[in-house]
Amino acid sequence: MTIVRKHVRQRLSQVVIHNGTVYLAGIVADEPVPDDPGAQTANILKKIDGFLAEAGSNRSSMLSATIWLSDMAYYDAMNKEWDAWVPEGCAPGRACVESKLAAPKYKVEIRITAAVV
Amino acid sequence: MTIVRKHVRQRLSQVVIHNGTVYLAGIVADEPVPDDPGAQTANILKKIDGFLAEAGSNRSSMLSATIWLSDMAYYDAMNKEWDAWVPEGCAPGRACVESKLAAPKYKVEIRITAAVV
Amino acid sequence: MTIVRKHVRQRLSQVVIHNGTVYLAGIVADEPVPDDPGAQTANILKKIDGFLAEAGSNRSSMLSATIWLSDMAYYDAMNKEWDAWVPEGCAPGRACVESKLAAPKYKVEIRITAAVV
Repeated sequence: MTIVRKHVRQRLSQVVIHNGTVYLAGIVADEPVPDDPGAQTANILKKIDGFLAEAGSNRSSMLSATIWLSDMAYYDAMNKEWDAWVPEGCAPGRACVESKLAAPKYKVEIRITAAVV
Repeated sequence: MTIVRKHVRQRLSQVVIHNGTVYLAGIVADEPVPDDPGAQTANILKKIDGFLAEAGSNRSSMLSATIWLSDMAYYDAMNKEWDAWVPEGCAPGRACVESKLAAPKYKVEIRITAAVV
Repeated sequence: MTIVRKHVRQRLSQVVIHNGTVYLAGIVADEPVPDDPGAQTANILKKIDGFLAEAGSNRSSMLSATIWLSDMAYYDAMNKEWDAWVPEGCAPGRACVESKLAAPKYKVEIRITAAVV
């Protein structure tokens, strides 16, 4: 079983595919809107759509999601975007916890595991 | 390879099955006993038993476990329940770290990945 | 599909193999050098090399990595070791977040999922 990687850097690959399963890196916003976790979430979910498409998957085929918020106060703002983005009947297993992220400007980080369709 | 989901809500599915692997959501206690991480853990593990059974798996077939404690002071109380619950010789890969959870009443959250038997 | 475990204790197994995928436990340093996250990371990565080898895998076949730092101030020290250790072109999906660990002496914890080669 081969391993396919996309957007490979020294530190991490954004997309890794193996045995019908897609492993994304933890995704943060590209140009994080200051103190706007909702906008950051929207940007992250758009990026995830792109990465999943490159891997032959999509948001209807997610298996698990881990969501880190730098402050749990962002829970509702994140969920508003998340709930609207997940296709009805296709929600993954999800865990959402509070952890500080690599830089203070990042308020939200999301990691997805998905199935190749 | 199909994806089977159980206890599907808009935000998350409690159980997702794909390619012989079961992905549970992060599980918290149903009616969290205030300030009793041991009791919360016991309730979580009972829920996990039920979800794994629905997925055709069980606590002897766990692959990995992630345990979040809202305060690492709960480590011993959680472990007392965990160690007694895991069948001898069947422990999964495990990581246990401190993160605040979705609401202050939750002291423990556990996510399991397991094999379909 | 069988489950193979290595270094099995009551609480966790360091290595679990199923369906061509290796699940390691969250690994911390064996004798953590006080306040030296770089040295702790180097020790962890050496341990991961050993565990992956026992599982029929290696650092060129990682699928995902989760890195917890007890303080994000350790980010650069950890990355210096990590970046030098990952074979070029083989980086896994990675997430790195801040969480306190099981004991204050631990500054870094790393969990790897990898493919059996």
